[in-house]
Amino acid sequence: MMEKSKFSYDLVAQDGRARAGVFHTPHGDIPTPIFAPVGTQASVKSLTQRHLQELDAKLILSNTYHLYLRPGDELIAELGGLHPFMSWDRPILTDSGGFQVFSLSDMRQVDEDGVTFKSHLDGATHRLTPEKSIAIQENLGSDIIMAFDECADPYQRDYIEAAMHRTHRWAERCKAAQARDDQALFGIVQGGIYPELREQSAEFIRSLDLPGNAIGGLSVGETKEEMHAMLEIVDQILPQDKPRYLMGVGTPQDLVEGVRRGVDIFDCVLPTRLARHSAAMTDSGRLNMMNAQFARDERPISATCECYTCQNYSRAYLRHLIQAKELLAGTLLSIHNIHTLLSLTRRMRQSILDGQFDEFAYNYLANFD
Amino acid sequence: MMEKSKFSYDLVAQDGRARAGVFHTPHGDIPTPIFAPVGTQASVKSLTQRHLQELDAKLILSNTYHLYLRPGDELIAELGGLHPFMSWDRPILTDSGGFQVFSLSDMRQVDEDGVTFKSHLDGATHRLTPEKSIAIQENLGSDIIMAFDECADPYQRDYIEAAMHRTHRWAERCKAAQARDDQALFGIVQGGIYPELREQSAEFIRSLDLPGNAIGGLSVGETKEEMHAMLEIVDQILPQDKPRYLMGVGTPQDLVEGVRRGVDIFDCVLPTRLARHSAAMTDSGRLNMMNAQFARDERPISATCECYTCQNYSRAYLRHLIQAKELLAGTLLSIHNIHTLLSLTRRMRQSILDGQFDEFAYNYLANFD
Repeated sequence: MMEKSKFSYDLVAQDGRARAGVFHTPHGDIPTPIFAPVGTQASVKSLTQRHLQELDAKLILSNTYHLYLRPGDELIAELGGLHPFMSWDRPILTDSGGFQVFSLSDMRQVDEDGVTFKSHLDGATHRLTPEKSIAIQENLGSDIIMAFDECADPYQRDYIEAAMHRTHRWAERCKAAQARDDQALFGIVQGGIYPELREQSAEFIRSLDLPGNAIGGLSVGETKEEMHAMLEIVDQILPQDKPRYLMGVGTPQDLVEGVRRGVDIFDCVLPTRLARHSAAMTDSGRLNMMNAQFARDERPISATCECYTCQNYSRAYLRHLIQAKELLAGTLLSIHNIHTLLSLTRRMRQSILDGQFDEFAYNYLANFD
Repeated sequence: MMEKSKFSYDLVAQDGRARAGVFHTPHGDIPTPIFAPVGTQASVKSLTQRHLQELDAKLILSNTYHLYLRPGDELIAELGGLHPFMSWDRPILTDSGGFQVFSLSDMRQVDEDGVTFKSHLDGATHRLTPEKSIAIQENLGSDIIMAFDECADPYQRDYIEAAMHRTHRWAERCKAAQARDDQALFGIVQGGIYPELREQSAEFIRSLDLPGNAIGGLSVGETKEEMHAMLEIVDQILPQDKPRYLMGVGTPQDLVEGVRRGVDIFDCVLPTRLARHSAAMTDSGRLNMMNAQFARDERPISATCECYTCQNYSRAYLRHLIQAKELLAGTLLSIHNIHTLLSLTRRMRQSILDGQFDEFAYNYLANFD
């Protein structure tokens, strides 16, 4: 008799293509739609883990490539895995390392078996294969682990097609390599901006019958129309009873457009990266808090925002912290920006439960220039 | 009839020369002995104000020189003063700007009336006088304000003596210039390492009958024996019914030796500065958390420490954050280091109330190498 899976997804409500659900994991339930803040090196930059709890982050992401190189997945395994290592007992998702190998490392060489690359830290040569990526993620002990994929330039069709097929073969190898049953392996749909490739990839990934599915290779330079078209194709093919994760996407508008097209999970470095560059994300666009117009502005970033930053600090104080190069600026803006995205996913979920998603989306998007 | 002062000091208990008291201010009571974390630019570096509340900081310090230059004391006054500006409703102490003019600015020129200097930010010429320092501090609205003083090289007796007399004349001018009655002006005893000058200065500052008194010009290069000798002289002269503040002193041992010699209030950038340089302050010395020996160390910095950092994070994680240059390292170490000093002052206070200060001090100091 097959053991009951430690993971399951309940589709609670649907409104058009938008979905409200719950993904059950050993470290707790993840209500969807959800945004996952990114803690690349086992730290969401400039925030304590308690800040994340207070923001009610339900899922965070960490990067396999970075943790493999430093401090090393074996060290983290010795210390009991990522959860105790970083003192975070809610769900964690790790990527496969594939995207970073292609975007960060030097002198990478792809072959059928895997990728050889040089570390961006010290130039040392390393090799990742599907099996190695799974072994690292098993050492990390994250709740959701990702199949090792190849991220190709979206406008080179021949390369995209070859990379997609390799990604499919690698996904099968990842599934075969998985030894732990307390981690949910997600496959990744590739295929660039080519409808027939996306369709083919979604069909293949669906056939693997994994506990969740992801959509990769988007938000890498294509137009919004191209991204939306790809999401619509994939949405029709991926199973309804499993979560869908759109990788690396994180503007408020992209979250709304993604949910509208059946996406459940998002992640992005945008809120923390913008925070370090003095930008506040709001429900009507971005504010550059360095701007002199805020020097005497006693209002919070956003009058209706319930985050710690907006409840306690003025635009004038934030602008002063930025001018004075105080680290607190990045912390307070990160809190606000992550709250903006988490609050948005919570409101989208409620609107789906209420059967009001279209109206919510229309009104929300109308606030942006 | 004279209005009842908004400030008063209750000497609750004395054990030897060590004092336990309460300084009452319009923004709340300050139990003494107390350590004041430093928020130079209206931010205790890398901490939110809630971190400081949770550490139960009763008093923080901010720097007049920095805030005068940026964002400007008039801007802060327009926004209601430092308390609302930085969202901190407990007591704040501002220094006079004197020390920073002498340590940070370029091309300063001292005359009887005041000091002309160039800003370390943009080279612009500014002038501080006793009256201007008070006016700035009144704009800032801090609870404890300091008389404008001249900080001289402790080993140049002639200069020290001249600077001390000028500091006395400036203290009289500060007292005369004060217009607000909701700020406690503290005079500053100078006199370098010369017993007869310290005695003379303490007598003069005592004669001003201000609501509190400070001891300046120490911890600037003199030996511990010289510092202790000066404290013992000043302790005999300053009034018992007013708080004594030892400026810029902040190692655990210095706090114990200061309290032993009648000091009530301390401030120092040390806990946050050490945090940014990867050092943890403990009750038995400093740990360099960058050290490779901590890579797999699952223990907290200190087994008995009750701070948020020690309750949640291992040495291994802190070491990883430092190696990975994550900002969270500085935040977590600042929390721990400030807790170490605040916890020390709380324990010293209790030991004085219990009549056990000498034993506490002896045992505490014996833990250091």
